Amino acid sequence: MEILAMDIGKTKTFAVLVDENGNILAEAVSGPSGAWLEERVILKNISEATGGCLSKSGLGLDELDLVSISWSDLDTKEDWQKAWKIAEKIGLRKEKTIVEHDAVAAYYAVTWGEPGVAVVAGTGSIAFGMNKQGERMRSGGWGWLMGDEGSAYWIGVKALNAVSRSLDGRGGRTALTEKLKKYFSIEEELEILKKVYKELLGNPAEIARIAEIVDEAAEEEDEVSKKILSEAGEELAECILAIAK
Amino acid sequence: MEILAMDIGKTKTFAVLVDENGNILAEAVSGPSGAWLEERVILKNISEATGGCLSKSGLGLDELDLVSISWSDLDTKEDWQKAWKIAEKIGLRKEKTIVEHDAVAAYYAVTWGEPGVAVVAGTGSIAFGMNKQGERMRSGGWGWLMGDEGSAYWIGVKALNAVSRSLDGRGGRTALTEKLKKYFSIEEELEILKKVYKELLGNPAEIARIAEIVDEAAEEEDEVSKKILSEAGEELAECILAIAK
Repeated sequence: MEILAMDIGKTKTFAVLVDENGNILAEAVSGPSGAWLEERVILKNISEATGGCLSKSGLGLDELDLVSISWSDLDTKEDWQKAWKIAEKIGLRKEKTIVEHDAVAAYYAVTWGEPGVAVVAGTGSIAFGMNKQGERMRSGGWGWLMGDEGSAYWIGVKALNAVSRSLDGRGGRTALTEKLKKYFSIEEELEILKKVYKELLGNPAEIARIAEIVDEAAEEEDEVSKKILSEAGEELAECILAIAK
Repeated sequence: MEILAMDIGKTKTFAVLVDENGNILAEAVSGPSGAWLEERVILKNISEATGGCLSKSGLGLDELDLVSISWSDLDTKEDWQKAWKIAEKIGLRKEKTIVEHDAVAAYYAVTWGEPGVAVVAGTGSIAFGMNKQGERMRSGGWGWLMGDEGSAYWIGVKALNAVSRSLDGRGGRTALTEKLKKYFSIEEELEILKKVYKELLGNPAEIARIAEIVDEAAEEEDEVSKKILSEAGEELAECILAIAK
Protein backbone atom coordinates (compact mmCIF):
# COMPACT_ATOMS: atom_id res chain seq x y z
CA MET A 1 0.00 0.00 0.00
CA GLU A 2 1.39 3.38 -1.04
CA ILE A 3 0.34 6.60 0.64
CA LEU A 4 1.38 10.08 -0.38
CA ALA A 5 1.23 12.39 2.64
CA MET A 6 1.62 16.11 2.19
CA ASP A 7 2.16 18.97 4.63
CA ILE A 8 1.19 22.11 2.77
CA GLY A 9 2.34 25.21 4.58
CA LYS A 10 3.03 28.90 4.30
CA THR A 11 6.79 28.34 4.08
CA LYS A 12 7.06 25.08 2.17
CA THR A 13 5.25 22.10 0.69
CA PHE A 14 6.52 18.78 2.00
CA ALA A 15 5.53 15.48 0.40
CA VAL A 16 6.42 12.05 1.65
CA LEU A 17 5.59 8.64 0.20
CA VAL A 18 5.07 5.97 2.84
CA ASP A 19 3.89 2.36 2.98
CA GLU A 20 1.23 1.06 5.37
CA ASN A 21 3.86 0.57 8.10
CA GLY A 22 5.03 4.15 7.88
CA ASN A 23 8.28 3.32 6.09
CA ILE A 24 9.44 6.29 4.04
CA LEU A 25 9.85 5.45 0.35
CA ALA A 26 10.51 8.94 -0.99
CA GLU A 27 10.50 12.60 0.05
CA ALA A 28 10.30 15.90 -1.82
CA VAL A 29 10.08 19.57 -0.84
CA SER A 30 8.91 22.58 -2.84
CA GLY A 31 7.80 26.18 -2.20
CA PRO A 32 4.80 27.38 -0.13
CA SER A 33 1.24 26.38 -1.10
CA GLY A 34 -0.91 27.76 1.74
CA ALA A 35 -4.56 28.05 0.68
CA TRP A 36 -4.38 31.84 0.49
CA LEU A 37 -1.71 31.91 -2.18
CA GLU A 38 -2.44 32.25 -5.87
CA GLU A 39 -3.82 29.14 -7.54
CA ARG A 40 -0.98 28.95 -10.07
CA VAL A 41 1.63 29.10 -7.28
CA ILE A 42 -0.13 26.36 -5.32
CA LEU A 43 -0.53 24.22 -8.45
CA LYS A 44 3.15 24.59 -9.30
CA ASN A 45 4.44 23.75 -5.83
CA ILE A 46 2.12 20.84 -5.12
CA SER A 47 2.85 19.36 -8.55
CA GLU A 48 6.56 19.73 -7.91
CA ALA A 49 6.43 18.00 -4.51
CA THR A 50 4.12 15.25 -5.75
CA GLY A 51 6.12 14.73 -8.93
CA GLY A 52 9.35 14.59 -6.91
CA CYS A 53 8.04 11.73 -4.76
CA LEU A 54 6.64 9.84 -7.73
CA SER A 55 9.75 10.09 -9.88
CA LYS A 56 11.98 8.98 -7.00
CA SER A 57 9.78 5.94 -6.37
CA GLY A 58 9.00 5.19 -10.01
CA LEU A 59 5.27 5.15 -9.26
CA GLY A 60 2.46 6.79 -11.22
CA LEU A 61 -0.26 8.94 -9.62
CA ASP A 62 -2.84 6.21 -10.33
CA GLU A 63 -0.82 3.64 -8.41
CA LEU A 64 -1.18 5.56 -5.13
CA ASP A 65 -3.68 4.06 -2.69
CA LEU A 66 -4.22 7.26 -0.75
CA VAL A 67 -3.23 10.92 -0.81
CA SER A 68 -3.51 12.66 2.55
CA ILE A 69 -3.11 16.42 2.65
CA SER A 70 -2.62 18.64 5.69
CA TRP A 71 -3.30 22.13 4.40
CA SER A 72 -2.47 25.45 6.02
CA ASP A 73 -4.97 28.37 5.95
CA LEU A 74 -7.89 26.19 4.89
CA ASP A 75 -10.72 28.08 6.60
CA THR A 76 -13.63 29.33 4.52
CA LYS A 77 -15.93 27.57 2.01
CA GLU A 78 -14.05 29.42 -0.71
CA ASP A 79 -10.73 27.94 0.53
CA TRP A 80 -12.19 24.43 0.42
CA GLN A 81 -13.59 24.87 -3.07
CA LYS A 82 -10.20 26.16 -4.22
CA ALA A 83 -8.39 23.23 -2.55
CA TRP A 84 -10.59 20.60 -4.24
CA LYS A 85 -10.37 22.36 -7.58
CA ILE A 86 -6.58 22.25 -7.35
CA ALA A 87 -6.60 18.60 -6.26
CA GLU A 88 -8.70 17.80 -9.33
CA LYS A 89 -6.42 19.75 -11.67
CA ILE A 90 -3.43 17.83 -10.37
CA GLY A 91 -5.26 14.59 -11.09
CA LEU A 92 -6.03 13.43 -7.53
CA ARG A 93 -9.15 11.27 -7.30
CA LYS A 94 -11.60 12.50 -4.70
CA GLU A 95 -12.36 9.04 -3.31
CA LYS A 96 -8.67 8.41 -2.67
CA THR A 97 -7.85 11.84 -1.27
CA ILE A 98 -8.16 13.27 2.23
CA VAL A 99 -7.85 17.02 2.66
CA GLU A 100 -7.75 18.55 6.13
CA HIS A 101 -6.82 21.79 7.88
CA ASP A 102 -3.31 21.41 9.31
CA ALA A 103 -4.62 21.63 12.89
CA VAL A 104 -6.68 18.48 12.21
CA ALA A 105 -3.61 16.68 10.90
CA ALA A 106 -1.68 17.68 14.02
CA TYR A 107 -4.59 16.36 16.08
CA TYR A 108 -4.53 12.97 14.35
CA ALA A 109 -0.74 12.81 14.68
CA VAL A 110 -1.00 12.87 18.47
CA THR A 111 -4.40 11.26 19.19
CA TRP A 112 -4.55 8.77 16.28
CA GLY A 113 -8.20 9.83 16.00
CA GLU A 114 -9.20 9.10 19.60
CA PRO A 115 -11.37 11.75 21.32
CA GLY A 116 -9.22 14.50 22.77
CA VAL A 117 -7.72 17.93 22.24
CA ALA A 118 -4.41 18.81 20.59
CA VAL A 119 -2.73 22.19 20.98
CA VAL A 120 -0.15 23.42 18.53
CA ALA A 121 2.00 26.25 19.88
CA GLY A 122 4.87 27.20 17.64
CA THR A 123 5.20 30.56 15.89
CA GLY A 124 1.38 30.62 16.00
CA SER A 125 -1.09 28.67 18.12
CA ILE A 126 -4.31 26.70 17.67
CA ALA A 127 -6.23 23.98 19.47
CA PHE A 128 -8.37 21.30 17.82
CA GLY A 129 -10.48 18.61 19.37
CA MET A 130 -13.06 15.92 18.74
CA ASN A 131 -15.52 14.11 21.01
CA LYS A 132 -16.76 10.48 20.92
CA GLN A 133 -19.48 11.45 18.46
CA GLY A 134 -16.82 12.74 16.07
CA GLU A 135 -17.94 16.34 16.51
CA ARG A 136 -15.08 18.71 15.79
CA MET A 137 -14.14 22.02 17.32
CA ARG A 138 -11.27 24.44 17.01
CA SER A 139 -10.20 27.27 19.26
CA GLY A 140 -7.56 29.94 18.76
CA GLY A 141 -5.58 29.96 15.53
CA TRP A 142 -6.68 33.45 14.51
CA GLY A 143 -3.23 34.51 13.38
CA TRP A 144 -0.70 36.92 14.83
CA LEU A 145 -2.80 40.07 14.62
CA MET A 146 -6.18 38.80 15.88
CA GLY A 147 -5.09 35.97 18.13
CA ASP A 148 -2.41 33.25 18.38
CA GLU A 149 -2.46 33.70 22.14
CA GLY A 150 0.26 31.79 23.95
CA SER A 151 2.32 31.29 20.77
CA ALA A 152 5.98 32.21 20.44
CA TYR A 153 4.94 35.28 18.42
CA TRP A 154 2.54 36.33 21.19
CA ILE A 155 5.29 35.86 23.80
CA GLY A 156 7.67 37.95 21.67
CA VAL A 157 5.23 40.85 21.41
CA LYS A 158 4.50 40.67 25.16
CA ALA A 159 8.24 40.88 25.79
CA LEU A 160 8.60 43.98 23.58
CA ASN A 161 5.63 45.54 25.33
CA ALA A 162 7.08 44.73 28.78
CA VAL A 163 10.34 46.43 27.80
CA SER A 164 8.51 49.53 26.57
CA ARG A 165 6.47 49.71 29.81
CA SER A 166 9.60 49.28 31.86
CA LEU A 167 11.50 51.98 29.97
CA ASP A 168 8.80 54.65 30.30
CA GLY A 169 7.93 53.88 33.91
CA ARG A 170 4.58 52.15 33.44
CA GLY A 171 5.89 48.71 34.30
CA GLY A 172 8.48 47.07 36.53
CA ARG A 173 12.13 46.54 35.66
CA THR A 174 12.93 43.45 33.67
CA ALA A 175 16.08 41.64 32.60
CA LEU A 176 14.52 41.55 29.12
CA THR A 177 15.66 45.13 28.43
CA GLU A 178 19.38 44.31 28.62
CA LYS A 179 18.87 40.97 26.92
CA LEU A 180 17.04 42.56 23.99
CA LYS A 181 19.67 45.30 23.66
CA LYS A 182 22.29 42.58 23.42
CA TYR A 183 20.17 40.49 21.04
CA PHE A 184 19.65 43.45 18.72
CA SER A 185 23.27 44.68 19.18
CA ILE A 186 22.17 48.19 20.16
CA GLU A 187 23.26 50.61 22.85
CA GLU A 188 20.34 53.03 23.00
CA GLU A 189 16.98 51.68 24.21
CA LEU A 190 14.88 53.58 21.66
CA GLU A 191 16.79 51.85 18.87
CA ILE A 192 14.62 48.82 19.67
CA LEU A 193 11.85 50.68 17.84
CA LYS A 194 13.87 50.77 14.66
CA LYS A 195 14.87 47.12 14.94
CA VAL A 196 11.24 46.09 15.41
CA TYR A 197 9.61 48.31 12.82
CA LYS A 198 12.28 48.46 10.14
CA GLU A 199 13.84 45.00 10.37
CA LEU A 200 11.49 42.51 12.00
CA LEU A 201 8.27 43.88 10.60
CA GLY A 202 6.30 41.58 8.38
CA ASN A 203 8.29 38.68 9.76
CA PRO A 204 6.31 37.04 12.58
CA ALA A 205 8.89 34.22 12.75
CA GLU A 206 11.61 36.71 13.73
CA ILE A 207 9.44 38.19 16.49
CA ALA A 208 8.64 34.65 17.64
CA ARG A 209 12.37 34.07 18.17
CA ILE A 210 12.25 36.59 21.04
CA ALA A 211 10.33 33.91 22.99
CA GLU A 212 13.66 32.12 23.47
CA ILE A 213 15.01 35.19 25.26
CA VAL A 214 11.92 35.29 27.50
CA ASP A 215 12.48 31.65 28.29
CA GLU A 216 16.11 32.30 29.20
CA ALA A 217 15.19 35.28 31.40
CA ALA A 218 12.46 33.29 33.14
CA GLU A 219 14.96 30.55 34.00
CA GLU A 220 17.11 33.27 35.54
CA GLU A 221 14.10 34.22 37.68
CA ASP A 222 13.09 37.43 35.86
CA GLU A 223 9.61 38.08 37.28
CA VAL A 224 8.25 39.86 34.18
CA SER A 225 9.33 36.96 31.95
CA LYS A 226 7.90 34.37 34.30
CA LYS A 227 4.59 36.24 34.24
CA ILE A 228 4.53 36.35 30.42
CA LEU A 229 5.15 32.60 30.17
CA SER A 230 2.57 31.83 32.81
CA GLU A 231 0.01 33.97 30.93
CA ALA A 232 0.91 32.14 27.71
CA GLY A 233 0.16 28.86 29.47
CA GLU A 234 -3.16 30.20 30.70
CA GLU A 235 -4.10 31.31 27.19
CA LEU A 236 -3.35 27.86 25.77
CA ALA A 237 -5.29 26.26 28.62
CA GLU A 238 -8.24 28.51 27.78
CA CYS A 239 -8.17 27.19 24.21
CA ILE A 240 -8.25 23.61 25.50
CA LEU A 241 -11.04 24.34 27.99
CA ALA A 242 -13.17 26.01 25.33
CA ILE A 243 -13.07 22.75 23.37
CA ALA A 244 -13.38 20.41 26.35
CA LYS A 245 -16.58 22.04 27.61
CA MET B 1 7.84 88.69 12.53
CA GLU B 2 7.61 85.68 10.20
CA ILE B 3 7.55 82.12 11.50
CA LEU B 4 7.60 78.99 9.38
CA ALA B 5 5.94 76.13 11.27
CA MET B 6 6.15 72.61 9.94
CA ASP B 7 4.37 69.40 10.87
CA ILE B 8 6.48 66.59 9.45
CA GLY B 9 4.65 63.30 9.48
CA LYS B 10 4.53 59.80 8.11
CA THR B 11 1.73 60.70 5.69
CA LYS B 12 2.51 64.29 4.74
CA THR B 13 4.65 67.35 5.36
CA PHE B 14 2.64 70.44 6.19
CA ALA B 15 4.20 73.89 6.27
CA VAL B 16 2.53 77.10 7.32
CA LEU B 17 3.89 80.63 7.44
CA VAL B 18 2.46 82.70 10.30
CA ASP B 19 3.07 86.10 11.85
CA GLU B 20 3.56 86.70 15.59
CA ASN B 21 -0.22 86.86 16.09
CA GLY B 22 -0.78 83.49 14.47
CA ASN B 23 -2.23 84.92 11.26
CA ILE B 24 -1.66 82.52 8.39
CA LEU B 25 0.31 84.08 5.53
CA ALA B 26 0.85 80.97 3.38
CA GLU B 27 0.41 77.20 3.44
CA ALA B 28 1.96 74.30 1.51
CA VAL B 29 1.73 70.52 1.65
CA SER B 30 4.06 67.84 0.29
CA GLY B 31 4.74 64.12 0.76
CA PRO B 32 5.83 62.30 3.95
CA SER B 33 9.14 63.18 5.67
CA GLY B 34 9.11 61.10 8.89
CA ALA B 35 12.61 60.71 10.33
CA TRP B 36 12.82 57.06 9.30
CA LEU B 37 12.44 57.75 5.60
CA GLU B 38 15.37 58.06 3.22
CA GLU B 39 17.28 61.32 3.44
CA ARG B 40 16.67 62.19 -0.22
CA VAL B 41 12.89 61.73 0.24
CA ILE B 42 12.87 63.90 3.36
CA LEU B 43 15.01 66.56 1.67
CA LYS B 44 12.72 66.67 -1.35
CA ASN B 45 9.48 66.91 0.62
CA ILE B 46 10.66 69.44 3.20
CA SER B 47 12.17 71.61 0.45
CA GLU B 48 8.91 71.43 -1.48
CA ALA B 49 6.77 72.45 1.51
CA THR B 50 9.18 75.18 2.59
CA GLY B 51 9.58 76.45 -0.96
CA GLY B 52 5.82 76.47 -1.43
CA CYS B 53 5.31 78.76 1.55
CA LEU B 54 8.15 81.06 0.61
CA SER B 55 7.13 81.48 -3.03
CA LYS B 56 3.51 82.21 -2.05
CA SER B 57 4.64 84.86 0.42
CA GLY B 58 7.49 86.25 -1.67
CA LEU B 59 9.90 85.83 1.24
CA GLY B 60 13.42 84.39 1.20
CA LEU B 61 14.63 81.76 3.69
CA ASP B 62 16.92 84.36 5.33
CA GLU B 63 14.00 86.66 6.01
CA LEU B 64 12.31 84.13 8.32
CA ASP B 65 12.62 84.94 12.01
CA LEU B 66 12.00 81.37 13.17
CA VAL B 67 11.48 77.88 11.76
CA SER B 68 9.68 75.51 14.13
CA ILE B 69 9.54 71.84 13.19
CA SER B 70 7.38 69.12 14.74
CA TRP B 71 8.95 65.89 13.49
CA SER B 72 7.49 62.40 13.53
CA ASP B 73 9.64 59.35 14.47
CA LEU B 74 12.44 61.46 15.94
CA ASP B 75 13.68 59.05 18.61
CA THR B 76 17.32 58.00 18.62
CA LYS B 77 20.57 60.03 18.52
CA GLU B 78 20.94 58.90 14.92
CA ASP B 79 17.50 60.38 14.07
CA TRP B 80 18.48 63.71 15.61
CA GLN B 81 21.79 63.85 13.77
CA LYS B 82 19.96 63.08 10.54
CA ALA B 83 17.34 65.77 11.23
CA TRP B 84 19.94 68.50 11.86
CA LYS B 85 21.98 67.43 8.86
CA ILE B 86 18.88 67.79 6.69
CA ALA B 87 18.01 71.15 8.26
CA GLU B 88 21.50 72.36 7.41
CA LYS B 89 21.34 71.09 3.83
CA ILE B 90 18.09 72.97 3.30
CA GLY B 91 19.76 76.12 4.57
CA LEU B 92 18.05 76.50 7.96
CA ARG B 93 20.21 78.32 10.51
CA LYS B 94 20.53 76.40 13.78
CA GLU B 95 20.03 79.46 15.99
CA LYS B 96 16.74 80.27 14.29
CA THR B 97 15.41 76.70 14.13
CA ILE B 98 13.51 74.61 16.67
CA VAL B 99 13.23 70.87 16.05
CA GLU B 100 11.05 68.71 18.31
CA HIS B 101 9.44 65.26 18.40
CA ASP B 102 5.80 65.64 17.36
CA ALA B 103 4.57 64.63 20.82
CA VAL B 104 6.39 67.68 22.22
CA ALA B 105 4.71 69.92 19.66
CA ALA B 106 1.33 68.48 20.61
CA TYR B 107 2.20 69.16 24.25
CA TYR B 108 3.01 72.81 23.56
CA ALA B 109 -0.13 73.20 21.48
CA VAL B 110 -2.31 72.40 24.49
CA THR B 111 -0.21 73.58 27.46
CA TRP B 112 1.59 76.55 25.87
CA GLY B 113 4.66 75.29 27.70
CA GLU B 114 3.14 75.26 31.20
CA PRO B 115 3.92 72.15 33.33
CA GLY B 116 1.52 69.33 32.56
CA VAL B 117 0.89 66.20 30.54
CA ALA B 118 -0.60 65.91 27.06
CA VAL B 119 -1.94 62.64 25.65
CA VAL B 120 -2.34 62.08 21.94
CA ALA B 121 -4.68 59.20 21.11
CA GLY B 122 -5.46 58.87 17.42
CA THR B 123 -4.43 55.93 15.26
CA GLY B 124 -1.51 55.59 17.70
CA SER B 125 -1.02 56.94 21.21
CA ILE B 126 1.65 58.75 23.25
CA ALA B 127 1.85 60.93 26.34
CA PHE B 128 4.36 63.71 26.94
CA GLY B 129 4.88 65.88 29.96
CA MET B 130 7.10 68.47 31.61
CA ASN B 131 7.51 69.60 35.22
CA LYS B 132 8.29 73.08 36.64
CA GLN B 133 12.01 72.41 36.26
CA GLY B 134 11.52 71.80 32.55
CA GLU B 135 12.33 68.10 32.87
CA ARG B 136 10.69 66.14 30.10
CA MET B 137 9.22 62.68 30.02
CA ARG B 138 7.34 60.56 27.50
CA SER B 139 5.29 57.46 28.00
CA GLY B 140 3.72 55.14 25.45
CA GLY B 141 4.21 55.87 21.76
CA TRP B 142 5.93 52.57 21.03
CA GLY B 143 4.00 51.97 17.81
CA TRP B 144 1.27 49.53 16.89
CA LEU B 145 3.26 46.34 17.43
CA MET B 146 5.03 47.10 20.71
CA GLY B 147 2.58 49.51 22.28
CA ASP B 148 0.16 52.31 21.35
CA GLU B 149 -2.10 51.13 24.15
CA GLY B 150 -5.49 52.84 24.20
CA SER B 151 -5.16 54.08 20.61
CA ALA B 152 -7.76 53.51 17.90
CA TYR B 153 -5.49 50.81 16.42
CA TRP B 154 -5.26 49.09 19.81
CA ILE B 155 -9.05 49.23 20.19
CA GLY B 156 -9.47 47.76 16.68
CA VAL B 157 -7.20 44.80 17.46
CA LYS B 158 -8.97 44.21 20.79
CA ALA B 159 -12.27 44.13 18.91
CA LEU B 160 -10.98 41.56 16.42
CA ASN B 161 -9.63 39.49 19.29
CA ALA B 162 -12.94 39.70 21.17
CA VAL B 163 -14.79 38.45 18.09
CA SER B 164 -12.37 35.52 17.68
CA ARG B 165 -12.76 34.59 21.36
CA SER B 166 -16.52 34.82 21.08
CA LEU B 167 -16.62 32.66 17.95
CA ASP B 168 -14.55 29.80 19.37
CA GLY B 169 -16.17 29.81 22.79
CA ARG B 170 -13.39 31.37 24.84
CA GLY B 171 -15.19 34.66 25.34
CA GLY B 172 -18.70 36.02 25.76
CA ARG B 173 -21.03 36.93 22.94
CA THR B 174 -20.65 40.40 21.49
CA ALA B 175 -22.58 42.60 19.08
CA LEU B 176 -19.21 43.25 17.43
CA THR B 177 -19.41 39.97 15.50
CA GLU B 178 -22.49 40.97 13.50
CA LYS B 179 -21.28 44.54 13.16
CA LEU B 180 -17.92 43.42 11.77
CA LYS B 181 -19.55 40.97 9.35
CA LYS B 182 -21.65 43.85 8.08
CA TYR B 183 -18.67 46.22 7.98
CA PHE B 184 -16.60 43.73 5.96
CA SER B 185 -19.63 42.66 3.84
CA ILE B 186 -19.14 38.97 4.59
CA GLU B 187 -21.50 36.13 5.50
CA GLU B 188 -19.15 33.55 6.95
CA GLU B 189 -17.36 34.43 10.23
CA LEU B 190 -14.00 32.93 9.24
CA GLU B 191 -13.88 35.28 6.25
CA ILE B 192 -12.91 37.96 8.79
CA LEU B 193 -9.47 36.31 8.77
CA LYS B 194 -9.08 36.95 5.10
CA LYS B 195 -10.26 40.54 5.37
CA VAL B 196 -7.82 41.23 8.18
CA TYR B 197 -4.76 39.45 6.81
CA LYS B 198 -5.19 39.97 3.08
CA GLU B 199 -6.79 43.41 2.94
CA LEU B 200 -6.13 45.39 6.12
CA LEU B 201 -2.64 44.12 6.80
CA GLY B 202 0.11 46.67 6.78
CA ASN B 203 -2.49 49.36 7.13
CA PRO B 204 -2.80 50.32 10.80
CA ALA B 205 -5.12 53.20 9.87
CA GLU B 206 -7.69 50.74 8.46
CA ILE B 207 -7.62 48.65 11.62
CA ALA B 208 -7.93 51.84 13.65
CA ARG B 209 -11.23 52.54 11.87
CA ILE B 210 -12.74 49.52 13.64
CA ALA B 211 -12.63 51.64 16.83
CA GLU B 212 -15.66 53.51 15.47
CA ILE B 213 -17.61 50.24 15.40
CA VAL B 214 -16.59 49.51 19.00
CA ASP B 215 -17.77 52.97 19.96
CA GLU B 216 -21.12 52.39 18.27
CA ALA B 217 -21.58 48.98 19.94
CA ALA B 218 -20.65 50.41 23.34
CA GLU B 219 -23.31 53.10 22.97
CA GLU B 220 -25.77 50.28 22.29
CA GLU B 221 -24.68 48.72 25.61
CA ASP B 222 -22.55 45.87 24.22
CA GLU B 223 -20.65 44.73 27.35
CA VAL B 224 -17.56 43.50 25.49
CA SER B 225 -17.21 46.83 23.67
CA LYS B 226 -17.72 48.82 26.86
CA LYS B 227 -14.97 46.80 28.50
CA ILE B 228 -12.55 47.42 25.61
CA LEU B 229 -13.13 51.18 25.75
CA SER B 230 -12.80 51.25 29.50
CA GLU B 231 -9.49 49.35 29.26
CA ALA B 232 -8.32 51.82 26.60
CA GLY B 233 -9.06 54.65 29.03
CA GLU B 234 -7.12 52.87 31.77
CA GLU B 235 -4.13 52.38 29.46
CA LEU B 236 -4.07 56.09 28.58
CA ALA B 237 -4.44 56.98 32.26
CA GLU B 238 -1.45 54.75 33.03
CA CYS B 239 0.62 56.72 30.52
CA ILE B 240 -0.36 59.97 32.23
CA LEU B 241 0.33 58.59 35.72
CA ALA B 242 3.76 57.30 34.69
CA ILE B 243 4.67 60.88 33.78
CA ALA B 244 2.92 62.57 36.71
CA LYS B 245 4.75 60.49 39.30
